[in-house]
Amino acid sequence: MSRKSAISWVEAGYVSVRGYAIDELIGRVSFGEAVFLLLRGELPAPAEAAIFNAILVSVIDHGVSPPSTIAAVTVANTGAGLNSAVAAGLLAINKFHGGAVEDAMHAIGEACASGLRADEAAKDLVERYRREGRRVSGFGHRFHAADPRTVRLFELADELEIEGKFVAQAKAIESALSENAARPIPINADGAIAALLLELGFSPKTANGIFMIARTPGLVAHAVEEQERNPPMRTVSVDEYEYDGARGRTIDEQ
Amino acid sequence: MSRKSAISWVEAGYVSVRGYAIDELIGRVSFGEAVFLLLRGELPAPAEAAIFNAILVSVIDHGVSPPSTIAAVTVANTGAGLNSAVAAGLLAINKFHGGAVEDAMHAIGEACASGLRADEAAKDLVERYRREGRRVSGFGHRFHAADPRTVRLFELADELEIEGKFVAQAKAIESALSENAARPIPINADGAIAALLLELGFSPKTANGIFMIARTPGLVAHAVEEQERNPPMRTVSVDEYEYDGARGRTIDEQ
Amino acid sequence: MSRKSAISWVEAGYVSVRGYAIDELIGRVSFGEAVFLLLRGELPAPAEAAIFNAILVSVIDHGVSPPSTIAAVTVANTGAGLNSAVAAGLLAINKFHGGAVEDAMHAIGEACASGLRADEAAKDLVERYRREGRRVSGFGHRFHAADPRTVRLFELADELEIEGKFVAQAKAIESALSENAARPIPINADGAIAALLLELGFSPKTANGIFMIARTPGLVAHAVEEQERNPPMRTVSVDEYEYDGARGRTIDEQ
Amino acid sequence: MSRKSAISWVEAGYVSVRGYAIDELIGRVSFGEAVFLLLRGELPAPAEAAIFNAILVSVIDHGVSPPSTIAAVTVANTGAGLNSAVAAGLLAINKFHGGAVEDAMHAIGEACASGLRADEAAKDLVERYRREGRRVSGFGHRFHAADPRTVRLFELADELEIEGKFVAQAKAIESALSENAARPIPINADGAIAALLLELGFSPKTANGIFMIARTPGLVAHAVEEQERNPPMRTVSVDEYEYDGARGRTIDEQ
Repeated sequence: MSRKSAISWVEAGYVSVRGYAIDELIGRVSFGEAVFLLLRGELPAPAEAAIFNAILVSVIDHGVSPPSTIAAVTVANTGAGLNSAVAAGLLAINKFHGGAVEDAMHAIGEACASGLRADEAAKDLVERYRREGRRVSGFGHRFHAADPRTVRLFELADELEIEGKFVAQAKAIESALSENAARPIPINADGAIAALLLELGFSPKTANGIFMIARTPGLVAHAVEEQERNPPMRTVSVDEYEYDGARGRTIDEQ
Repeated sequence: MSRKSAISWVEAGYVSVRGYAIDELIGRVSFGEAVFLLLRGELPAPAEAAIFNAILVSVIDHGVSPPSTIAAVTVANTGAGLNSAVAAGLLAINKFHGGAVEDAMHAIGEACASGLRADEAAKDLVERYRREGRRVSGFGHRFHAADPRTVRLFELADELEIEGKFVAQAKAIESALSENAARPIPINADGAIAALLLELGFSPKTANGIFMIARTPGLVAHAVEEQERNPPMRTVSVDEYEYDGARGRTIDEQ
Repeated sequence: MSRKSAISWVEAGYVSVRGYAIDELIGRVSFGEAVFLLLRGELPAPAEAAIFNAILVSVIDHGVSPPSTIAAVTVANTGAGLNSAVAAGLLAINKFHGGAVEDAMHAIGEACASGLRADEAAKDLVERYRREGRRVSGFGHRFHAADPRTVRLFELADELEIEGKFVAQAKAIESALSENAARPIPINADGAIAALLLELGFSPKTANGIFMIARTPGLVAHAVEEQERNPPMRTVSVDEYEYDGARGRTIDEQ
Repeated sequence: MSRKSAISWVEAGYVSVRGYAIDELIGRVSFGEAVFLLLRGELPAPAEAAIFNAILVSVIDHGVSPPSTIAAVTVANTGAGLNSAVAAGLLAINKFHGGAVEDAMHAIGEACASGLRADEAAKDLVERYRREGRRVSGFGHRFHAADPRTVRLFELADELEIEGKFVAQAKAIESALSENAARPIPINADGAIAALLLELGFSPKTANGIFMIARTPGLVAHAVEEQERNPPMRTVSVDEYEYDGARGRTIDEQ
């Protein structure tokens, strides 16, 4: 027995995940809570479950333009199986796309571990990255001046009393970056998620995995739609897509 | 504009999914509900949300032996990025592994659409598959005589009053198969999920997608563990794994 | 020992492929001949080697527009490893892209197996596909009225005396399709390759594999170029590419 | 036109690769030469073509045990398309498997660029890697005491007068490593290929791409064989494979 696994266990008539029988979990924990259990080894407390679900929901999809969606749709359009399309999409979730959460977790985590006050640690970090010619991941966005996901995630974290030193550090880095650039460099969704995953005790190593878990539903939805609605074997170009779905709904309307 | 998409929409400062602003969804719907929304276009009713979450939880992981896990772990063991490992895992979710849900949805759906009584439709189906030399997917299992996931999923569906004609049809097929074979051929987790997804209004085309969404967390967990705990660049063999995780926990212990 | 393999064999100090020691093959057979050996189990005769090399060369690359290239470049552009980019590209080589060779091998093979004269078999095939609403794969092309690769491959096959009943059958299908449509429906590169692979004794099952082997160098070249020359994390669109390489060279110029 | 490509060009009735019309290349250059042209931008001289073909042949397959083969066969065994199986295989060609060529090219290249005599540069390199706790890639092998591929590749390079400073440097590193360890640490196939690719003017960035091009035929052959000969949906374990192919053939027997 040279290899170890502590995740799940299967024998005849029995399946367990992190020590819980699967029939104990079914119907008692939500999918988001089960994902937390699988990755962290423990079930989340209610506030942890709420913020972790919120994180997963916040990046579940982002239109047709992300490279992962383009790769998935391009492969789906050739008549591929759904799994090939989704696999191609995941292969685009990398250093530059998705990877920002991991990088931001490292940056925020390092600043927190410095022993300095949050604002001083932030200044040091911004200065150091500037000298090394590096961007601080998780701040600023190509599309969104103020990312609606960041605002809502932090509001929720505040309500749930999940905000702690990592969120405070992320906000201090936002201030230091904005001051340095003399224009707002807001925390984007990647940065907000990074701070919250640190609050929840996740390791940076799992960040890309969490992003993939959250985005796989989006890739599945786009690949299914491409094969059902769009003509096959065409060159897929983002500019050709027209959005013809629902608009402006609120949950209360239901 | 030659291509259509109705899934999500992004503009500066605004992200929507199926017509709901993302900040409306964050903190108000669970990840499982958001997956339902993304794939079906509508938010689930509470009972639908509960059973859909239960389905996703039921197949979130299944030890180290499924081919998708072996593929993911084999790739992780070469020092690959997490996304390469997960993509390789998904490529094994196919006709024979995972694909059973889609096939079972077709079989149950056809029987239901026959206009016959459930027991007659089941007999016809079993007879027809026998003549054509085909197995009815979703019944019987390599490991489990009675699949603990099936029992619990159907119990829950009964409590939630989600059981309808598709579950009844699946049970009738179980009876017909078992009678025909003169030994129990129980509905397995794939078959139970197939019946419940039909009750929830999902198309067979999305079945493999739902299985992939549910299993991606398992693939991520195994790939992370492989890189953290096991020696690299070895031939990965299922028989070498020792389970050294938690055992016999119950939710009440918390 | 429940599984069989007849491809290659490795023990300490010894590697063999299809029974030949690797050091016997190195320096004595070209890469194209070794591919033939691996797939067919025997080394090719000189004329077979020449036409097989010609087939591989003919589809080695086709600009930036094929879906496999777009998928590879999209993934490369996110900072992925080269293998992720190439894997994503291969996932687009499928039913509609690449798969035409396999379909054309089936069509030409069936017509040849009919026992009819080539022109009669072709008419029957065209008529049957018309009734079933199916296109005959391997004939007609989106870009090329007369595909320069077809002309050259058949010319070479004629010189090498490789042309036999499958090439004759393909030409008869071309005539029948063109007559039926009252306009030229020329054999395209997929159709020419299909006829020649049948002459060489390959099974349709290997067709997509041969296309992948031939195109992998193209995918590698595009992925390397994307990471070296083009800005990262942009939406990759085919229309944006400018060709700035060599033009109008001939081999004699060397 | 914000993106550049210099690889191939397609217009109606015309396909070119690196400036050569495809019909100029078909029948006049071998597949190996066309791969060289695609990656390096120029056709190889005859000795370069011979050694490049030899490199590709030397790693075309290596039995059932490499992780890339296991991943490909595991996916093929689930009923996947051939392209999914090959893509999964490529995802295992990474830092630890295949990546050794790239690392060895860096090590040999750095030593050569040091300005020192080969033996001194080798001693420095071995000493520096020892201090940093790193292995020098391309030397030593799990299976082969003396790798038959290395011996033959260097013999051939000598005949073709391709051996130059990079091969000399690799041999000096072999001596330094062996002296340091007081046992033979021979150049393995990865190291020999690294030295020869440097002699041919390739960049380390393309090394993994060349390995993938060379090994794709092996992955295709194993995936096709798995689907034709072995029972589906079983746990694939390397130890279960019996080799039942040809043995001990020589080219002269033909």
